[in-house]
Parts: sequence; C-alpha cells; structure tokens
Amino acid sequence: MAQKTVTLKEITDLVGGELEGDPNVVITGVSGLKEAREGEIAFLANPKYEFLLGDNLKASAVIVSKDMKRRLSKPLIRVENPSIAFSKVISLLFPDEKKFFKGVHQTAIVGKDVVLGGGVSLGPYVVLEDKVSIKDNTVICAGTFIGYGTKIGSGVFIYPNVTIREKTVIGNRAIIHSGAVLGSDGFGFEVANGSRYKIPQVGIVVIEDDVEIGACVTIDRARFGKTVIGKGTKIDNLVQIAHNVVVGENSIIVAQAGISGSSVIGKNVILAGQCGLVGHIEIGDNVIVGAQAGVTKSVPKGTFVVGSPAKPHNVSKKIFAGWAKLPDLVKEVADLKEQVEKLTQKRGKGGKTKDNKK
Amino acid sequence: MAQKTVTLKEITDLVGGELEGDPNVVITGVSGLKEAREGEIAFLANPKYEFLLGDNLKASAVIVSKDMKRRLSKPLIRVENPSIAFSKVISLLFPDEKKFFKGVHQTAIVGKDVVLGGGVSLGPYVVLEDKVSIKDNTVICAGTFIGYGTKIGSGVFIYPNVTIREKTVIGNRAIIHSGAVLGSDGFGFEVANGSRYKIPQVGIVVIEDDVEIGACVTIDRARFGKTVIGKGTKIDNLVQIAHNVVVGENSIIVAQAGISGSSVIGKNVILAGQCGLVGHIEIGDNVIVGAQAGVTKSVPKGTFVVGSPAKPHNVSKKIFAGWAKLPDLVKEVADLKEQVEKLTQKRGKGGKTKDNKK
Amino acid sequence: MAQKTVTLKEITDLVGGELEGDPNVVITGVSGLKEAREGEIAFLANPKYEFLLGDNLKASAVIVSKDMKRRLSKPLIRVENPSIAFSKVISLLFPDEKKFFKGVHQTAIVGKDVVLGGGVSLGPYVVLEDKVSIKDNTVICAGTFIGYGTKIGSGVFIYPNVTIREKTVIGNRAIIHSGAVLGSDGFGFEVANGSRYKIPQVGIVVIEDDVEIGACVTIDRARFGKTVIGKGTKIDNLVQIAHNVVVGENSIIVAQAGISGSSVIGKNVILAGQCGLVGHIEIGDNVIVGAQAGVTKSVPKGTFVVGSPAKPHNVSKKIFAGWAKLPDLVKEVADLKEQVEKLTQKRGKGGKTKDNKK
Repeated sequence: MAQKTVTLKEITDLVGGELEGDPNVVITGVSGLKEAREGEIAFLANPKYEFLLGDNLKASAVIVSKDMKRRLSKPLIRVENPSIAFSKVISLLFPDEKKFFKGVHQTAIVGKDVVLGGGVSLGPYVVLEDKVSIKDNTVICAGTFIGYGTKIGSGVFIYPNVTIREKTVIGNRAIIHSGAVLGSDGFGFEVANGSRYKIPQVGIVVIEDDVEIGACVTIDRARFGKTVIGKGTKIDNLVQIAHNVVVGENSIIVAQAGISGSSVIGKNVILAGQCGLVGHIEIGDNVIVGAQAGVTKSVPKGTFVVGSPAKPHNVSKKIFAGWAKLPDLVKEVADLKEQVEKLTQKRGKGGKTKDNKK
Repeated sequence: MAQKTVTLKEITDLVGGELEGDPNVVITGVSGLKEAREGEIAFLANPKYEFLLGDNLKASAVIVSKDMKRRLSKPLIRVENPSIAFSKVISLLFPDEKKFFKGVHQTAIVGKDVVLGGGVSLGPYVVLEDKVSIKDNTVICAGTFIGYGTKIGSGVFIYPNVTIREKTVIGNRAIIHSGAVLGSDGFGFEVANGSRYKIPQVGIVVIEDDVEIGACVTIDRARFGKTVIGKGTKIDNLVQIAHNVVVGENSIIVAQAGISGSSVIGKNVILAGQCGLVGHIEIGDNVIVGAQAGVTKSVPKGTFVVGSPAKPHNVSKKIFAGWAKLPDLVKEVADLKEQVEKLTQKRGKGGKTKDNKK
Repeated sequence: MAQKTVTLKEITDLVGGELEGDPNVVITGVSGLKEAREGEIAFLANPKYEFLLGDNLKASAVIVSKDMKRRLSKPLIRVENPSIAFSKVISLLFPDEKKFFKGVHQTAIVGKDVVLGGGVSLGPYVVLEDKVSIKDNTVICAGTFIGYGTKIGSGVFIYPNVTIREKTVIGNRAIIHSGAVLGSDGFGFEVANGSRYKIPQVGIVVIEDDVEIGACVTIDRARFGKTVIGKGTKIDNLVQIAHNVVVGENSIIVAQAGISGSSVIGKNVILAGQCGLVGHIEIGDNVIVGAQAGVTKSVPKGTFVVGSPAKPHNVSKKIFAGWAKLPDLVKEVADLKEQVEKLTQKRGKGGKTKDNKK
C-alpha cells in the first residue's frame, strides 16, 4: 500500500529515532514484517516476532525498539515506542485518508431550531431532528439519524448509518462507528397483573470528550438520569451498555462485552472481549476483566479477574490448573478409596486379632 | 431532570399510596436515591439500597414499599409496588416525551398496493416496498426499511434505521429499536461436492402483540414456516434468534443471548445475558437460564439452570463451590496418596512379619 | 406456504430420487414434518425425527434418505441427501422469491468516477461514494452505503442498510445481510503520556467470492494490509472479526462468535456460536471450535476444541465429567482424610506398641 513517497531521513526526523543505514532509501508504503515488499517500511513491537527479521525480510527498513540489540543488513530506525512511531509514518504516507462528503448535502434534512457550528458536514440522507446542536468541524456521514435535542461537540466524526436518539450529549472529538445505536430505551419492565409493564426510560446518554464507539455498539439511555461514557474511553464493536451504567475515563471495552444496568466502571479499566458484568456492581479503577469472564460482584481497584464466575486471576489460574488435573484426580480418589478400604479392613481384622489376643 | 411541576398530593393521588409528610411539597423532577437533589422524588424498590435513606439523602420525597417499616424526616409515599408507582410519576412529569415526525414525510417512499391505516406516520427516508400494510397510529421512524408484503399492526413504534425484510408479520403495540434486523436469511448450508450450498430460507418472521425488540437484535426468517416471538415477550439489545425458533409469551431475553435454530422456548422464560442455546431443544415454561449459561439440551419447565454446560442451579452451585476448593483438593489428594502409600508399605511389612510369624 | 402447484412426478424428476407412491399427487407447499398440512411436502434428514412419520403426519409426501428403511402409507421420495433435495423443491415452488427494486432508483446517489456493470440495481437512498466500481447484475438494496473506492464483483446481493467503508473489495456472488458493517476501524490504541492514542487503520477488508455475511456482522479494516474473508466462507449474525484477521476458504462462523486481531483461521474451519478467539493465533484447517469456547492459543489442524479455556474435545469432556463428580469428590476426600488420619493414629499407636515391645 502506498500513497506518497518519503526518504528514511524524513521518517527518522518525524519519529525522532536513531537511524542505522542509508538515509536516502526511498519508502513508498507501509506493511507488516511478514507481508512487506521492497520499498515498504515495517515495524517490530512484539519481541515474539523478532524471528521475522531473518533472510526472508523483504521490507526496505524496519522500525524497532531501542531495546532490540540485534543488527541487520537492512536499515533500522531505533525508537522508544515502535508502535507509535509507525503510526506517525502511516499518517505521513496516507495524509488524507478520510474521504467524506464536505458541507451540507442537499438531501440532509435539518429540523427546526438546529444550530450548526462552522465547518460542519452533513452527508446524504442525514436526518437531524429539531433542536439538535452541532459544534465546529463535526462530520455526520450518510444515513445517520440524530434525534431531538441532541448536543454534539466539535471535531466529532460520526460514520454512516449511526442512530443517535433524542437528547444524547456527545463531547468533542468523539468517533462513532457505523451501526452504533446510542440512547435506545433501557430494558426495564415490571410485572403487574401477570403481564409485563414497560418502565419509562426518560434519562439520557452522555458521551464525553475523546470517546470512540465501535460498530453496532448499543448504549441504552438511563431510566432517569444518565448513562455515561467517560472521557477518553474506547469501546470496540458489538458491545452492550445497559441503562444507567457509568464508565470512567480512559477505559477500554473490547468487542462483544456486556455491562448490565446501573453498574459503575472505574478509570483505566479493561474489559476484555465477550466478558459480562451483572447489574448494580462497582468495578474499581485499573481493574482488568479477562475475556469471557462473568463478573457477579463488585471488583476492588487494581484487581485482575478471570473466569465465569470471575475470581482474581491467581485464584482462577489455580482452578483452571485443577480442571486439567480433575480427570486424574477422580481416578486417584477412587484408587485411594479402595486402598484405604483394604487398609481399614485389614486393620479391622488386625484389631480383631489383637482383641482376640487380649 | 424536570419537565413539569407537581405536588406530593397530586403524586399520591396518582399512585394510590399512603403519604407520610406535607402534601404541598413541590416536586420538579425524578432521580435515583443517590443522585437526587432537592425538589426531586426518588424511590426505593430494592431493600439493599435502604442505607441510602440516611442523612445524605437530598431528595424531597421517596416512594417506598408498604413493607419498609422505617420512618424518615423526609416525606414518604408508601405503596404496593414502588417501581410501578415511580413509573407513573415519570409519565406524569414527562407527559410528551416521545418526539417523532408526524404524518407521511415527503421523502418516504411508498410502494404499490401499500395500505396505510389512519394516523400512520412515516419518517424521512422510510422505504415501504410493495404490498406492505400498516394499521392505525403506527409510527415508522427515519431510515427504516419495510420489505415486500410485510404486515404491521396498530400502535406499533419502529425506531430509526430498522430493517424489516419481506413478508414479516408484526402484531399490535410492538416496539422495535434502532438497528434491529427482522427476517434476515436463516443460516443454513449443505455440503455437496466439497463446497457449501445455500439452503433457501423462504419462511417468515412473526412478531406477536406487545413484543419489544432491542437495538441491533437479529431475528432470522424460517427456512420454511415461521420464526415466532410470542405475545408480550421482551428482547434486549444484540440478541440473536435463529431460523425456526419459537419463543412463547411473556418471556424475557436479555442482551447478547443467542438461540440456535429450531429451538422452542416456553412462556415466562427468562434467558439472562450472553447465554447461548443449541438448536432443536425445548425450554419449558418458567425456565430461568443464567447469564453466560450454555444450554446443550432441553430444560424441563420451572427449572433454573446455570453454567456452561448448563445444569440445574443447585447442581452448578455445588460445582462452582467445588472449583473453589479444587486447588486445595489437588494438594490434599497428593498428601493422602503419600500417607496411604506409607501406611500400605508399613502394613505390607507388618503383613510380612505376620506371615513370617506363621 | 404455497406459491405454485406441482405433482410428485415433477418433484421426483427434479430431485432425481425414487418415488414410492402416486406420481399424480399434487403438492401446493412445503413445510416441516410436524407443521405440514395436507397438500404439503416435508422432508426427514435427521433420523432423530423419524417418530414424526407416524399417524399424526399430515403431509401429502415426504422426502427421505435412501438409508431410511421404513415404509409409509404416504408417498415417499427416497434420495441421497434429503436436505439438498428439499432445497430444490423450495426453489421450484417459490420461483421468484427475492423481490427488490430493479434498476437505478432516482434517489440513489452515485459519486464521481463510479463504474457500474450491466444489470446493476441500486435501491432507494443508496449512497455510492466516488470511484466505486460494481460489476454486472449486482444488487444494492435501500439505504446501503458504499464508501470511496470500493470494488464489488458480479452477482453480489447486498441487503438494505448495510455499511461498507472505503476501499473494501468484495468478490463475486457474495451475499451481505442488513446491518452489517464492513471496514470499520480496527480497535488499536497506544498509551502515551497517560492517554490513549489512536493508531491509524489504513488497511482494507477483502471479501472473496461466494462469501455470505450475516446481519449486524462487524468486520474491521486492517491496521495496514488486509482483513480477509476467504472464498466460500459463511458468517452468521452478530459476529465480530477484528483487524488483520485472515479467514480461510469454506469456513463457517456461527452467530456471536468473535475473532481478535491478526488471528489466522484455516480452511473448512467451524467456529460455533459465541466462541471467542484471542489475537495473534493460528487455527488450522478443519478445526472445530465448540460453542462458547474460549481459544487462548493456536489450534493444530483437524482438532476439535471445546471449553473456556479451550482444550481438545476428549480432554474437556473428561473435565466436564469431572465437574459433575466434583461435589462428591470433595466429600470423598474429606472422608478419606478422616479415615487415613484414624489409620495413621492407630498405626502410630500400633507402632508405638511394637516399639514398646522391642
């Protein structure tokens, strides 16, 4: 993949690293270590892949960590964080990657009392209901629906076919991917006279600054009050966030995870893929919840829990090790029972003998 | 949050409870016990939160259960079911919450032989294919697609960006949230001559009266015949329902649960979040399936199953307790083996001695 | 369900089977064995359902396997593969099932430098960005968005409200269901100076020939390079496929499964419902991953793994059996401890006695 052409010198200047090799080598694209062809630059972040630096390496240069001691016949750029450096190179080589309709498309439907900042773009077939406000340079792509009274900050990017229900509040620089639904009704019913009765869900959803929300994520509006996604939190695809959940700042929620109603998630929390949290619990700051974990009660800050039901990692690890030994254990216990029975019988006989002797 | 202003007397008259305190106190909003500020009313349904009725309580009044014996310096309204009473208060304070385009928007595309009842609303960019029929007062919001020959009852509310494929049948008062897909092809393939061959999926989806379907739910059309969601059943976000599944009346399916093809779910069943059911099984009436449970065979009525693979709750509970003891058990069995070995050796020696004595 | 009327002779000629019964019987519809009424034809593929061939059978004829030895008073058609034969009958009886807008709808928005093949259909409110190319006879249904530079093959069918981001490549005869999102950004962040930094995702998604993608599936574009879905692979609803994943040919991915970044899946692999795979692993050809399994490391070809963490089926089976015995095991070990303690004490005493005797 290539868009533009740069020299290794330009790249080294950009990423602030130390170049080993010819600064005039021309780079025409980026790629993975394995897939890279001549003219492309690759990077090595995970030492696990160091073996790819061998004779089969086709890349014209590699960005590596300062900690990587090995020398190569190919040019190397040694940096603090190869992954971040590489991201800068991508931005250099793909300067205008994001294409979208600029301006307000003639088919965009704009309700009454809508306030649009400068440089706002509304793609084809966008619908803004009444009293929506959108700040400067925000982009709303084709087919996206923005409900009544929603407030959106500046520099936000909303991809095509997103649905944002009424009164949602979205901070600056948020990114919302296609198919996401924000502000759908919370799932709340009361049983009365044998049938289920819908509890009104009149709260809202608040998405703070710098949040990213993945494709087909669903975030329910609060029963009353707010469902909140804290500043800088990143949410992967197909995640479910129920009504009245509050997620703290800078947390990570990986694909297909689910959080039940009214649970409160701290800062810098990581919820790995497909994990599930029951409602009305608190997850402390810096907690890590493992993939597929089932969290049934509050987790104190800084804890790493795995398993379903979830337990601290060191506990679950021993349980998993125990599972592996379980089939043998079953046999061993059966053997022991037999042996102990024999011993007891003999002892019994022995005892009788002794008794008899008395 | 506030929309309107009412007195405690008005609220008590509405919910039919017993007021302890000044009937003239003015209520301007609703909130949770913890978040409530002066002027707001809150409620206590779960005794677990009774501690929030302490000195930090800012709410101007609280709706509580008749069973709650405690007295407060703040006004209380004692009712049978605080949750339902509170819902009524919300409806009183937020009288016209739902905003949507009324009438048929000029951009709505209406196919041939479409029959629309009185008071039907079609939002911007709605597409109705040929032979669709929609009964009185149903609302179809922006960007929703309704396929050929679909029949929709009265008083139905379909949120923006829903996709309803051809020949679907939807009962009265159903609610369908954004991003839901009804009537997508069932997942059926046969292997012939080494490659996979698509099995035609010519059945339909039937959604009965008073069903609610969450955001980004997928319900596949039957291979032939019908996939059915029974009257009054409520489905949360991101649930998958495969072809030919039949769900009974008044069941609850929580977020991210999945039901495989041709399984039959009874009445008043609760499938908790992220649980999964294999195909071709029967789940009896009043069954509860726990969160993340993996149901591999039919479950008789009234059973509560948890775990993966799922077992009756009392069985799985003991298994979970066993897991917690498993690391110790491994050690104990190793110890026992050692002890028994020693005993056997000694006994062996003893035996020999005895034999020698003979 | 019925569309057309045919005789058993016509059906037998079509499916190439052996008819037992009157060739002139008229068939007006298809149905399941259980639901079938007079005039309908049903089929029996799974011997488990053979009991439905009893007196309650209302179907006018049944397609069965050549291996089914039983004789019936109703006409039977014996074939190699009843399921495939039945699919052919469905196609015969429902000759023109798929209804969609033919031609280019006047509301479809077509960008600059778009190339459309012969017979391409674009439904209402379809948006094609610049430089999209679409080959012959492909159908894009209402509300679907196709991003900049995307290339779509011939005979592709894309259902309503799909989102395909820029530069995606889609092979011939692919089928993409509603709500699916292809080419959303991969989920990649680096931590620098305490906050999370978005890693540009400039790669693409490649969908090869004959792939089917379910409703609300999300497939992320590569960080750089390609996320690939191999030829003939079928993906069920609500599946998550992360950036840089490569799925081989003719694989099956069942609903709600998730594959983390950079994992490589072989040919003819089956990933069952709700299973999850960590990133950067390899799943060999012909592997089967069980429902809800959690795969934490690479799986060699031909292996069947189940459980979370996943292990080979025969190992996990023993572990599951061990779980069931675990509560008893705990008791047995406690009993054994007690017995061994007694034995040891007696032995100790016995020993002492002996010692004393010395």
